Amino acid sequence: MNAMARLAAKVAKPIAPKGVYAALFTPFTEAMEPDLPAMIDFARWLLANGCDGLSMLGSSGEGNSMSARRRMAILEGLVEAGLPPVRMIPGTGAASLGDVVEVTRHAVELGCGGALVLPPYYYKNPTDDGLFRAFAALIEQVADSRLRLYLYHIPQLSAVPVPHAVVERLVEAFPGIVAGLKDSSGDWSYSATLLQRVPGFGVYPGLEIFLAKVLHAGGAGCITGSANFTAPLCAQLAAARNDADVARLEKKLDQIRIAIESRPIIPALKAVQAEITGYAGWGRLLPPFTPLSDAERAGLFKDLDAILPRDAGHRWEMRA
Amino acid sequence: MNAMARLAAKVAKPIAPKGVYAALFTPFTEAMEPDLPAMIDFARWLLANGCDGLSMLGSSGEGNSMSARRRMAILEGLVEAGLPPVRMIPGTGAASLGDVVEVTRHAVELGCGGALVLPPYYYKNPTDDGLFRAFAALIEQVADSRLRLYLYHIPQLSAVPVPHAVVERLVEAFPGIVAGLKDSSGDWSYSATLLQRVPGFGVYPGLEIFLAKVLHAGGAGCITGSANFTAPLCAQLAAARNDADVARLEKKLDQIRIAIESRPIIPALKAVQAEITGYAGWGRLLPPFTPLSDAERAGLFKDLDAILPRDAGHRWEMRA
Repeated sequence: MNAMARLAAKVAKPIAPKGVYAALFTPFTEAMEPDLPAMIDFARWLLANGCDGLSMLGSSGEGNSMSARRRMAILEGLVEAGLPPVRMIPGTGAASLGDVVEVTRHAVELGCGGALVLPPYYYKNPTDDGLFRAFAALIEQVADSRLRLYLYHIPQLSAVPVPHAVVERLVEAFPGIVAGLKDSSGDWSYSATLLQRVPGFGVYPGLEIFLAKVLHAGGAGCITGSANFTAPLCAQLAAARNDADVARLEKKLDQIRIAIESRPIIPALKAVQAEITGYAGWGRLLPPFTPLSDAERAGLFKDLDAILPRDAGHRWEMRA
Repeated sequence: MNAMARLAAKVAKPIAPKGVYAALFTPFTEAMEPDLPAMIDFARWLLANGCDGLSMLGSSGEGNSMSARRRMAILEGLVEAGLPPVRMIPGTGAASLGDVVEVTRHAVELGCGGALVLPPYYYKNPTDDGLFRAFAALIEQVADSRLRLYLYHIPQLSAVPVPHAVVERLVEAFPGIVAGLKDSSGDWSYSATLLQRVPGFGVYPGLEIFLAKVLHAGGAGCITGSANFTAPLCAQLAAARNDADVARLEKKLDQIRIAIESRPIIPALKAVQAEITGYAGWGRLLPPFTPLSDAERAGLFKDLDAILPRDAGHRWEMRA
């Protein structure tokens, strides 16, 4: 059996859940404490309105701006509120291995469906061997067969890409543990090549417009910050059964993407969420983020109004 | 009084200590635990052999690969061993504000002369206002007038530069607290412009070859990883009183710099330290670093042998 066939055999039974995951935002009180009740309510809404699961405390959730202790307290609060941990893939990455191990182990012990882990992102240009060792050390130190690890490729923020060769080596070394990858590069060819090299791997692009494509290519779904807003449209796209519906939904989602990406993405999406809910806490951001200016916010809402109708309240209707 | 004069008045009494700081490495045991006894011995040697102070747990010290708890334990160990905290400027930066506040407060409470703090480095392209808010929040939350803050500009690792305008704003807002900046950009013009805009500010380039220049321009000294190796030469350069001596020492230090920088810098310098001491613990590195290959190490030592004589043991002699 050659290397390729050996690899394919290892992932013959894909273990990543299929579907739409929202990279859940974190609302803050005026004192800049996480607003857990608001977060819990919204998490419930997302699971009832198109999301198959939630990925909290990642880039969109500002997890990297919080200490390990705070991140663990938030995750615990969500699970204690009765939200199903099996549908959660929290971000547990950090620059330091000690923190990654602590937060990841905690997520596993809470019963989370997986953990989304960045490469160590302080030192740049690591060797492939150094990256492999970093993820291998995490798996060995968590030492729990329930761990399902999702690698996090987001070079525009981490500045440390996850090369395909490292993914392959990890899948070979830890079959059944290394379950998938979130590809936030925005570059479809990264996901496409990965699915060719590791067939059936749990690939989740970070853009909804790739959802139908990745499912067709044998991947798992999408994990996106914008699904906080577009979850119902994403669910329609995942369920679409003819090319015309797919094209129509992809076009709408792409228009929304362009409107959002013309501004700083996370402040823009949190401003939208504050507008929809009428709760300012959704618009608050930890440093180094700054909120959109009034003019930026008005421009964003105007762009969205041109794409989607609004209902009697402030909510944009999710129709393509 | 105009803005420039107001700023100059605020830093009229520079508070940063002058001199040569080594960005101390961290040795590890075979189990990859920090080897505190070896670290303490070497810290003593550096202070007796050319260093005015030590900056541990920064980039060279692999502090960013360690949890807050581990970093605090190491710093405590060094202080408890009798090393003078007033001569220490530990790296206390992290992607998360909570961690930075905890580790920085701990350093202040131990009596450290300062804390070297990275900008929050996960999210890229922050606004100047966002960066200012991040450092301001740190100062406000540490809430201790003994804090002396050194900003850390190292864009090749943090991928988040510290703009001059942000430094000026911080110096204006927190006079007597914001004491200086380590400029590891390798670009002399960054330091030169900063000293023009904030005269007398405690600027420490991350390269020894800029030491005489920065002292002449009113800056403070240097903080460098290579001073773990070159401390005696750095001290000679700081004390040099004529142009010929300065030129001779700068040339020698530049030759050493080129030899080191032709390899991955931190693994290369730790390999040199392991060779000098005969203790393999100095060569061990946390992921994502990997040690030099045998061939890389042999090439490095050969290059150094062409620059510096070796004594009867393994130590390269520090003569220009």
